[in-house]
Amino acid sequence: MEALHAIGVDLGGTKILAGVVARDGSVVRRHERATPQDSQEHVLAELEAAVAELLDDSVAAIGIGAPSPIDAKRGVVVRSVNVPLENAPLRDHMHERFGVPVGLDNDANGAAIGEWRAGAGRGVDDLVMLTLGTGVGGGIVSGGVPFRGGNGGGVELGHVVIVHDGRPCQGVCTGRGHLEAYVSGTAATDAAREAFGPSADAHRLIRLANEGDAKAKEILEDLARHLGSGIGSFVNIFAPELVLLGGGFGVAAFDYLCGPAEEVARREALKPMRDDFRLAKAELGTAAGLIGAAFVGFEALDSA
Amino acid sequence: MEALHAIGVDLGGTKILAGVVARDGSVVRRHERATPQDSQEHVLAELEAAVAELLDDSVAAIGIGAPSPIDAKRGVVVRSVNVPLENAPLRDHMHERFGVPVGLDNDANGAAIGEWRAGAGRGVDDLVMLTLGTGVGGGIVSGGVPFRGGNGGGVELGHVVIVHDGRPCQGVCTGRGHLEAYVSGTAATDAAREAFGPSADAHRLIRLANEGDAKAKEILEDLARHLGSGIGSFVNIFAPELVLLGGGFGVAAFDYLCGPAEEVARREALKPMRDDFRLAKAELGTAAGLIGAAFVGFEALDSA
Repeated sequence: MEALHAIGVDLGGTKILAGVVARDGSVVRRHERATPQDSQEHVLAELEAAVAELLDDSVAAIGIGAPSPIDAKRGVVVRSVNVPLENAPLRDHMHERFGVPVGLDNDANGAAIGEWRAGAGRGVDDLVMLTLGTGVGGGIVSGGVPFRGGNGGGVELGHVVIVHDGRPCQGVCTGRGHLEAYVSGTAATDAAREAFGPSADAHRLIRLANEGDAKAKEILEDLARHLGSGIGSFVNIFAPELVLLGGGFGVAAFDYLCGPAEEVARREALKPMRDDFRLAKAELGTAAGLIGAAFVGFEALDSA
Repeated sequence: MEALHAIGVDLGGTKILAGVVARDGSVVRRHERATPQDSQEHVLAELEAAVAELLDDSVAAIGIGAPSPIDAKRGVVVRSVNVPLENAPLRDHMHERFGVPVGLDNDANGAAIGEWRAGAGRGVDDLVMLTLGTGVGGGIVSGGVPFRGGNGGGVELGHVVIVHDGRPCQGVCTGRGHLEAYVSGTAATDAAREAFGPSADAHRLIRLANEGDAKAKEILEDLARHLGSGIGSFVNIFAPELVLLGGGFGVAAFDYLCGPAEEVARREALKPMRDDFRLAKAELGTAAGLIGAAFVGFEALDSA
């Protein structure tokens, strides 16, 4: 049987998105189910069910994107903030269950790979993708190859310091002044609540800005300028041709973010990198993660 | 003739250090000369003279480390702050003159490669090296391969933002709040002058700390904590096993820097990266750059 398809699974804090994906990045069929919140055992069972529901003879590999640092050598989810998984050997577990090569990666790497193979990053050899949602994730393609850091554990671009001794992170991160604390959808919601009361959130902030509210625009501009500091740093490190903004908040707020973020990023960037990058919006929406995960599966297949 | 040796050239703001280096990283012979300050023509002439003085039949390649972003595809020094070079086609120029493969890299990449092949980073597959001198440079080895960013132009680790909208950089960099503005030897000298008067500098600061001066120690600790924010960011991005501090100021102040920097870096770093890295002092001193440059030459030879 020809290796036509891979199943990509995007394991998120609230949903498991799974799909059958072809080598050209097209999604043949997909579905979603809720992420269990109670135990690792239930998460594993739902992941198995998500794959089993999609499996047929055309599927030659499985790829999973998980919201956690990954121990790539062992194929283990180290510890997730949003899903009850800790030291979970997802790769071997799924391989034993389904008998095909399984790839495991961080969800933000997965989204970057998805956009690179089938979205806004097609044909680009050097890109940085930032996903702005509940948290901030990052993924890198460098020289036409996904870059993962030592033992696949790095590229936590949301956890670079942009304000020394600044705002504390949430959850398990003990850091201060990280990009995530300033530019995530959560940070936007916090700022919206402070300005507009406890019922406001990031969506309302964008809506208010659309209606011309000066305070909402100011909040988004300040957030965007902080984002620009992060982007400028990544441009100086990775010298990308393309910086992509994705994630729910990143896409929804893109029109407010792109101008000020780009202005600050170009101020921070050195030549020649300063003139060589462009900033763009991710294209694949919520499918980026599962498409990218499927390519992580193809990668496992091709190197098996 | 067997490819025994490469000539490594470390082009610095004040000196050109050149040496004949064997495959094991040992320096067979070396010398130095002053870097011309007046024109690109004179810099090129002195580089040629430095190589010509060392050349013999055992030399099969030349490597050059330059204090500037590099356009790797074209083999060009884009623009140096400290040396009168702009858009200088060093690689082709030296190749035409001497007829052997020539490699060109950023000087901080060169120093990192030197420490990796022949110094404190021997046997390590994932390392980050920071050189703290007049400026702050960085070099990366990831997965046993030097990492250079898109078109070899990135890895400007001194120019990541650690304080959004913070202290301006010096020279051609228009950025604000970059690591370099807080932790370079120049920044240490600025702080020393502010505290101890116009004749003070980074060396005197260290001497005063050695003598027990509380203010000097406080300045170094604050500098070290800012360094920790940068290191924490790099650990989250690259997941290194080893972070090396080199450069004149980095080595001289190491005993004051390492404790506070490591404390902050571990606070900023996520698991598992937080527990997986160690911080150490570079070993090769001023020879790191020329040794690494020689290995960039061997790289050009082996891929010719």
